[in-house]
Amino acid sequence: MPRFQPKNPDFRRAATAVFDAQPAMHTLRISIARLDAGEVELAMPYSAAFAQQNGFVHAGIITAGLDNACGIAAYTLMAPGAAILTVEFKTNLLAPAKGERFLFRAEVIKPGRTLTFCEARAFAFDGAKESLVATMTGTLMALTPRAQRAEKEATDSALA
Amino acid sequence: MPRFQPKNPDFRRAATAVFDAQPAMHTLRISIARLDAGEVELAMPYSAAFAQQNGFVHAGIITAGLDNACGIAAYTLMAPGAAILTVEFKTNLLAPAKGERFLFRAEVIKPGRTLTFCEARAFAFDGAKESLVATMTGTLMALTPRAQRAEKEATDSALA
Amino acid sequence: MPRFQPKNPDFRRAATAVFDAQPAMHTLRISIARLDAGEVELAMPYSAAFAQQNGFVHAGIITAGLDNACGIAAYTLMAPGAAILTVEFKTNLLAPAKGERFLFRAEVIKPGRTLTFCEARAFAFDGAKESLVATMTGTLMALTPRAQRAEKEATDSALA
Amino acid sequence: MPRFQPKNPDFRRAATAVFDAQPAMHTLRISIARLDAGEVELAMPYSAAFAQQNGFVHAGIITAGLDNACGIAAYTLMAPGAAILTVEFKTNLLAPAKGERFLFRAEVIKPGRTLTFCEARAFAFDGAKESLVATMTGTLMALTPRAQRAEKEATDSALA
Repeated sequence: MPRFQPKNPDFRRAATAVFDAQPAMHTLRISIARLDAGEVELAMPYSAAFAQQNGFVHAGIITAGLDNACGIAAYTLMAPGAAILTVEFKTNLLAPAKGERFLFRAEVIKPGRTLTFCEARAFAFDGAKESLVATMTGTLMALTPRAQRAEKEATDSALA
Repeated sequence: MPRFQPKNPDFRRAATAVFDAQPAMHTLRISIARLDAGEVELAMPYSAAFAQQNGFVHAGIITAGLDNACGIAAYTLMAPGAAILTVEFKTNLLAPAKGERFLFRAEVIKPGRTLTFCEARAFAFDGAKESLVATMTGTLMALTPRAQRAEKEATDSALA
Repeated sequence: MPRFQPKNPDFRRAATAVFDAQPAMHTLRISIARLDAGEVELAMPYSAAFAQQNGFVHAGIITAGLDNACGIAAYTLMAPGAAILTVEFKTNLLAPAKGERFLFRAEVIKPGRTLTFCEARAFAFDGAKESLVATMTGTLMALTPRAQRAEKEATDSALA
Repeated sequence: MPRFQPKNPDFRRAATAVFDAQPAMHTLRISIARLDAGEVELAMPYSAAFAQQNGFVHAGIITAGLDNACGIAAYTLMAPGAAILTVEFKTNLLAPAKGERFLFRAEVIKPGRTLTFCEARAFAFDGAKESLVATMTGTLMALTPRAQRAEKEATDSALA
């Protein structure tokens, strides 16, 4: 039984479209491994181009995966046509991001009309070893089409 | 008058070496714009390859810049030979990261033997417009050569 | 010159009323020391009843002061009739909260129609010594009278 | 099977002693409801003296309970004689803290020689209704007797 009742019956296609529209995800070779209402897993292979000084994946790149997992998980529960933005997140780095591949697992803890709260964890797979490398808690915001118009008008008028 | 008294007289070279050793910084085209004891500014040009769905820079990439600014700022005050790792950070995203170039400005608020606390801000430059797009507070940890050996031995023995 | 233009000309009275309506502030003997548009200072004397195991003020009590400073600072910039709630905050504890009195200084960094971002610092005064003991970054939310009605109706109907 | 192997065979007594030594816990009427290696539940009755402007428990008081739950959970896994301090925490407030009693449930996610990472949740019980009102992620630090001496000597010499 699903924990959440999505407002958008077509949530899989909508969330996938938001994910696919992000060049950063392609560049980082992050892909959707699993997608359900309020739950997402993203996968990423190791890439030396995104390492820090010890050859492990940079904390910012791990954060990009965690943030996107939270965003897509939140987006599955938003109304059709909503835009999404990240308000804030906190990342705790628990172990070096050392491995051949990585998994970012996010779930919605509290959905809301405006704000959605998510939690996510990053795992590294190093041979047979799996380890928890980082956690995230984050707040995501839904912008309805009306709010997007109001925002755009405010911006246009501010620029005029 | 400098706010901080670095323990490492050669802190500029040491901090620059840690920065240069990170492939992720090269890949993201982030460079050191200014470096002082406890203070750092990093610069990054816009790159469409790291955009989110609206063409703005992805929050994870902004976070990579902020985290590295905090790390390098903290590293300038650490003892010679120390290794550095990020314990945690929180990012608040205040405006879309829209611009041709970006600046990540970090400063040490409280240095410590083991833990250093930093604050950082990310600014976007969009034509003549400068805007604050994100803030970070973060905790960095110094690992002395002795602690690095103890860690390595513990790991080697755990793997044996 | 004020940094912010308050929407509520009567913001001092409104913000003071929200502060005074909180029994927790009276119990903790926290008072308003300074109040401006987007800026607040709260003061608190030491009380042994709120100490942790070493006799210093408990981190949760320091957080109560920081959170309220953020909330009141944010409230000075909200529209008349708005209700305010805290979305999230992060506290970094930099030194023991040791002193006879404490100051919580908050300022709005980014006001918004719905969300306001604030930063705050807690200082301890121990004889002649002043020290920074903690920092907070926090997100506050404005609920307009309309949003408050919608929320109440949703709750009433959920309870029916 | 316990998830964690405590270093201190007498961890229950040691953790309870740290809890009991905190006047703030007595004043807030917070008590230990359950205590295991790496896991703690604290209970608190509602008290109007610690309410905010709507009669709900103040976010700072909820944070005091969450922080202490994290601290005691972390302390159960620390070596005998260690002192503990909170480095940082983030609280997300998900619903009004409305109820007759409250539960703060914390668990250690990653123990470490120096730093321990914990997660905690606050629940409100309002008649038959249980709701998740807040979450915390936090970093706790162990100070060994040696580190405490070094700290004290540094302080004494700084004061001389």
